[in-house]
Amino acid sequence: MNLDEIRALDKTDPLADKRLEFDLPKDVVYLDGNSLGALPRAVKTHLSQVLCQQWGNDLIKSWNDHQWIDLPVKVGEKIAPIIGAASGQVICCDSTSVNLFKLLCSALTLNSDRNVVLSTEDNFPTDLYMVQGVSDLLGEDLCHLQLVDEKDIQQNLTESVAVLLLTQVNFRTGKSLDMAKLTQLAHDKGILVIWDLAHSAGALPVELDQCEADFAVGCGYKYLNGGPGAPAFLYVATRHQEFVKQPLSGWMGHTNPFAFDTHYQASSNINQFQCGTPSVIAMSALDVALDVWRNVDMLTIQTKSVALSQVFLRLMQQHQPLDDLTLCSPVDAKQRGSQLAFSHNDAYAICQALIEKGVIADFRAPNMIRFGFTPLYTSFEDVWRAINTLRDVVESKLYQAQRFKVAAKVT
Amino acid sequence: MNLDEIRALDKTDPLADKRLEFDLPKDVVYLDGNSLGALPRAVKTHLSQVLCQQWGNDLIKSWNDHQWIDLPVKVGEKIAPIIGAASGQVICCDSTSVNLFKLLCSALTLNSDRNVVLSTEDNFPTDLYMVQGVSDLLGEDLCHLQLVDEKDIQQNLTESVAVLLLTQVNFRTGKSLDMAKLTQLAHDKGILVIWDLAHSAGALPVELDQCEADFAVGCGYKYLNGGPGAPAFLYVATRHQEFVKQPLSGWMGHTNPFAFDTHYQASSNINQFQCGTPSVIAMSALDVALDVWRNVDMLTIQTKSVALSQVFLRLMQQHQPLDDLTLCSPVDAKQRGSQLAFSHNDAYAICQALIEKGVIADFRAPNMIRFGFTPLYTSFEDVWRAINTLRDVVESKLYQAQRFKVAAKVT
Repeated sequence: MNLDEIRALDKTDPLADKRLEFDLPKDVVYLDGNSLGALPRAVKTHLSQVLCQQWGNDLIKSWNDHQWIDLPVKVGEKIAPIIGAASGQVICCDSTSVNLFKLLCSALTLNSDRNVVLSTEDNFPTDLYMVQGVSDLLGEDLCHLQLVDEKDIQQNLTESVAVLLLTQVNFRTGKSLDMAKLTQLAHDKGILVIWDLAHSAGALPVELDQCEADFAVGCGYKYLNGGPGAPAFLYVATRHQEFVKQPLSGWMGHTNPFAFDTHYQASSNINQFQCGTPSVIAMSALDVALDVWRNVDMLTIQTKSVALSQVFLRLMQQHQPLDDLTLCSPVDAKQRGSQLAFSHNDAYAICQALIEKGVIADFRAPNMIRFGFTPLYTSFEDVWRAINTLRDVVESKLYQAQRFKVAAKVT
Repeated sequence: MNLDEIRALDKTDPLADKRLEFDLPKDVVYLDGNSLGALPRAVKTHLSQVLCQQWGNDLIKSWNDHQWIDLPVKVGEKIAPIIGAASGQVICCDSTSVNLFKLLCSALTLNSDRNVVLSTEDNFPTDLYMVQGVSDLLGEDLCHLQLVDEKDIQQNLTESVAVLLLTQVNFRTGKSLDMAKLTQLAHDKGILVIWDLAHSAGALPVELDQCEADFAVGCGYKYLNGGPGAPAFLYVATRHQEFVKQPLSGWMGHTNPFAFDTHYQASSNINQFQCGTPSVIAMSALDVALDVWRNVDMLTIQTKSVALSQVFLRLMQQHQPLDDLTLCSPVDAKQRGSQLAFSHNDAYAICQALIEKGVIADFRAPNMIRFGFTPLYTSFEDVWRAINTLRDVVESKLYQAQRFKVAAKVT
């Protein structure tokens, strides 16, 4: 492939105009939107209005006049179509970890005659840490974490398992799990499933309702572009909402917070999963960032994501020095999220050298480089430039200078 | 007192210049900083820089280059002197309610041979709700909430009490509790104390270390002016840090989050109380808002707070129609936080009429109006204008129109 062919792909890209809705630094190829999404332009003007008008001028009245109080539900409703959820099942609040705690306790209570939380050894660490926290708090009799290799999930779906906790797209390799199949297999054994959508919400079509998912959590700062540490979200299927109980029973989850009752009475709908007062500024950023998704079809996102990663792989093959990088992601694009990961002994140093040359990817211990493709703003020419820079770095061993820096830092 | 005397007070106010550091709406008297602090001017420019430069341009690199990763500790260290805490004991994270959950579980674990959490009937509801959540999760054998009238706290400090949970300044009446005395009495019985500083941090001198406090939580959006729903903070005395364990064990509390270990290993210092990824935008707003406190002495804050409320009460006495309002706050200024509360059968309607005339106070069910004094930006002339407006509203029964609106809304 040559640059003309690459540019032709950008010309016919149905999402090309979306890039204009983002502020991207000049002369930088940003392939790390799977870690921190880029800045949607509208966030700047909206937050300025939130600060100056809503907070500065209208002050406390804004809870009603500017509907601050409705933000968690409003933002949740904007996220819902991106993850295949009908109305009334998604709410924006707290962090992914805190939300996972709520759902773990909810699911364990629903399945209280069982105690095993089954997950995978290479799940994102904080998910496992949160189970360990529940386990330490409630005791092993009520919560026991069992970790298995991903290929052994099915054979471990036994009747002692209360909850299956899986991340749909692996944070290192980008490998995606079959949500429909695994949810069905779990349900067959009476197991409830919590899906972590951190690397899938906004990256590929997620079909929570269609898969009859029970619970899900996800974050607002990756493919949803809500800003660093943006508020997270959670999903609870309607059929569970009247039976669940979550322990972080803060006043925003009360059926009538401003009655100031002494006794907690959980809201009967998705609001019961709120806890304390949410950050209006942070949630307003995510709120307006989600407007970029208007009129975006998730199949179009997926089609472009696959095309970007396939072009990346094809271009790599044109450069022999890049054979040193070993693909850790599935070769079959249908089994991937929207990233490619490669292992290399000098992964950290290569990653640093790339960043110095304006190509931002990221390193994941122990030896992996991740390249994230965010179809809303990654262009095919970005991929072309990234590959050329990667070739320069690897071919000229430019990264060795970085290796020395790393060594100097360690000693 | 006449207006000249009032203006003379503003002229000699050592905090008068601080008002210039805030954006306040024209023609409004804002007496609700105890609910939502006003906008510090510096927040606007700083957040613009955080958005455009740090997020938009420097993207993922900002976690290191702009020290996003250090914000929870950095902001905690800025809060520490305001609440009488030495370094290493305060961290900014999550919401007050979530932080309270962490501390309740920590304290119950430290005092695991007891099960009672003692609190007051008129504590802020979310504090009680969080105890109820812990109680439902762990069972009454491990956590039993006992509520008593404030005057009966001392006689209920028995050896079955694990934790005494108190809010230093009552959210309705503004009455403050004696932190030193109650902490000492509780410790004498082996009871750990959690102080909620929502209405005291930034309102009056708080001396956590001096009182040998164990734990505290507080919010960033009232007297600390961090913006609506700003991140909260928590305090854990150094002597407890190596023995505590909190269940919301997210990756930011790990001793080495970026090692991506499968097993949770809590940080040994205050960092162990972090959970998920914090909102950088929300925390940056609070970070710069706290700079207003540079060179501010808490005794100066208290002196002005007392003066403002005493002037308010004196001016009320000059207007006979205001006799209809019954003071619910302690008459002795030393026993109050930085607010005055009054009861009136038409409290809601009066409050709405005041707001329509540009004096912002707030209503708390069932029949209370609160006037908050925020010494950093409330002037004596604000108090003068508030009283004149209040007199107009009450004398002319202007609020009756509001009463009809309320009735119409209810039916």
